Amino acid sequence: MTNNQLIVVALGGNAISRSDQEGNVAEQFENSRTTAKQLADLTEQGHNLVITHGNGPQIGNFLLRNEVAAGVIYPLDMEVAVAHVQGGMGFMIALTLTNELNRRGRERVVNTFITTVLVSADDPAFEDPAKPVGRVLTADELVKHHERGWFAKEVGPGQYRRVVPSPAPVRIMEIDAIRRAVEGGDLIVACGGGGIPVVRDSENILSGLAAVIDKDLASALLAVELDVDCIMFLTAVERVAVDFGKPTQREIDTMTVAQAQEWLDQGQFPPGSMGPKVQGAINFLAASNKPDAVAIISHLDRAADSMAGTAGTRITK
Amino acid sequence: MTNNQLIVVALGGNAISRSDQEGNVAEQFENSRTTAKQLADLTEQGHNLVITHGNGPQIGNFLLRNEVAAGVIYPLDMEVAVAHVQGGMGFMIALTLTNELNRRGRERVVNTFITTVLVSADDPAFEDPAKPVGRVLTADELVKHHERGWFAKEVGPGQYRRVVPSPAPVRIMEIDAIRRAVEGGDLIVACGGGGIPVVRDSENILSGLAAVIDKDLASALLAVELDVDCIMFLTAVERVAVDFGKPTQREIDTMTVAQAQEWLDQGQFPPGSMGPKVQGAINFLAASNKPDAVAIISHLDRAADSMAGTAGTRITK
Repeated sequence: MTNNQLIVVALGGNAISRSDQEGNVAEQFENSRTTAKQLADLTEQGHNLVITHGNGPQIGNFLLRNEVAAGVIYPLDMEVAVAHVQGGMGFMIALTLTNELNRRGRERVVNTFITTVLVSADDPAFEDPAKPVGRVLTADELVKHHERGWFAKEVGPGQYRRVVPSPAPVRIMEIDAIRRAVEGGDLIVACGGGGIPVVRDSENILSGLAAVIDKDLASALLAVELDVDCIMFLTAVERVAVDFGKPTQREIDTMTVAQAQEWLDQGQFPPGSMGPKVQGAINFLAASNKPDAVAIISHLDRAADSMAGTAGTRITK
Repeated sequence: MTNNQLIVVALGGNAISRSDQEGNVAEQFENSRTTAKQLADLTEQGHNLVITHGNGPQIGNFLLRNEVAAGVIYPLDMEVAVAHVQGGMGFMIALTLTNELNRRGRERVVNTFITTVLVSADDPAFEDPAKPVGRVLTADELVKHHERGWFAKEVGPGQYRRVVPSPAPVRIMEIDAIRRAVEGGDLIVACGGGGIPVVRDSENILSGLAAVIDKDLASALLAVELDVDCIMFLTAVERVAVDFGKPTQREIDTMTVAQAQEWLDQGQFPPGSMGPKVQGAINFLAASNKPDAVAIISHLDRAADSMAGTAGTRITK
């Protein structure tokens, strides 16, 4: 793998939050500092990075704060909440990476762009809200929930969660400014939480809405728009596996986009975890004109190794 | 006043929140849409804008939500809260301005930068926390408050508010990327709430801290760094007044920076309202090398008029 590549690095949830922690601010900063080491290693390999990230635990906790305080102070709508969390998480990721680079004597400031992502009002996802957000609700809470016009799904016996549509990303609205920053050599954080979803009406007016754009698919769109060399999905497993949990399970070092599509069609990669990463890889590789374009799915702790070719799963044309 | 000027527009609190409203999201969007008309008028005069804004009501409400929900979910530190509110308010201001420009057939996307601002750990403000944040506390609540290591001041009989230091802005950390965006012709929102305050330790590591940088002074620093033609402070009064509330009260159409300094030294402009705007104007004009540099203090509803020279107070070299 050559140096001086432009990489979209899509951070998974474990980059900031770990399931064995409460998830408070101190813990998020601690995890973010660990993640920053991997990101700094990638820059020291000579690459430039556009960093994206999820927001699952953070947006859930943000909405919970809203809900608990709703009798005292007005709540924030979900799209406004996503915008807030982009600011808070972007600050944290950018500051910890700036500090890690400072520690290495490589002074660079990392910039966070608030990112809105256009979705289509005709997206079939709006007919079937499927993405769970926030905490588990009881049957009693569900009544109040429905009164608000919200949707919910049963996730266990007598347990429900709010669900929102997860439409496909169509256009990253701030792409021109992001491209300019990338071409100028800036390290940036963008598309937090998959971006703030907006729809456009017949009079060209944009509105935010309560929905969640998959962050891996938004990252793939960003990678296409920026014409990057590589997209890297960092997660909690070492490699993509097929026949997961079966005696025939095997980890994949490399696969072509055609092979990835075939296994995806077979249902080898579960929706909501490996599925969107493989789909994002396919979307990027299908759209890229670069013959050497590559998508990598790797454990967060092996990011730099995976770029050097000694870890992770590589997907090529 | 010639066209094609680069203007830092510092929005006052009334641009987004009005004291006769609850301040909820729908109201903030409604006010923001009205403000967007003035901003769009400025762009139609041929000017390019860098928009800054305060966050007083929003950060107070954000911290209140934190506090009410603290028994259920971890609170966010103040600097992290400021970062969140930059995201939320930036999204709102950028979206409403993008829409107003779309309505006029002038498609432009407005970009929001999360902005951190360096302050000095030796700033005397840290010896005397003076900026009130959040709600009024009772004497009983004050005890708990002090246990957290927070400072408070009495604002009325038996009433207290949390106070934090308000150090001077030293450096806008993201300035290179902001300059690049401005030079590329982007409309941008930056320095929300005066910026997220950070300090640098002896090992070049940055940390956020609980403090409030005056948004007018941060805007002035931004104006200096970007070498703009004009800084405009938009507020709730038509013009700067001297001898305010006295029989000799008069409104000022134009003044030199020397005259502004003299009146400021006399205590003509109260701290926390007109004082920082006049100080910001002085800071900008003192540092600018442009002979025609101008600072304008005007009512929000007269922004375009003030740029055309028919409203507001103009301060020149």
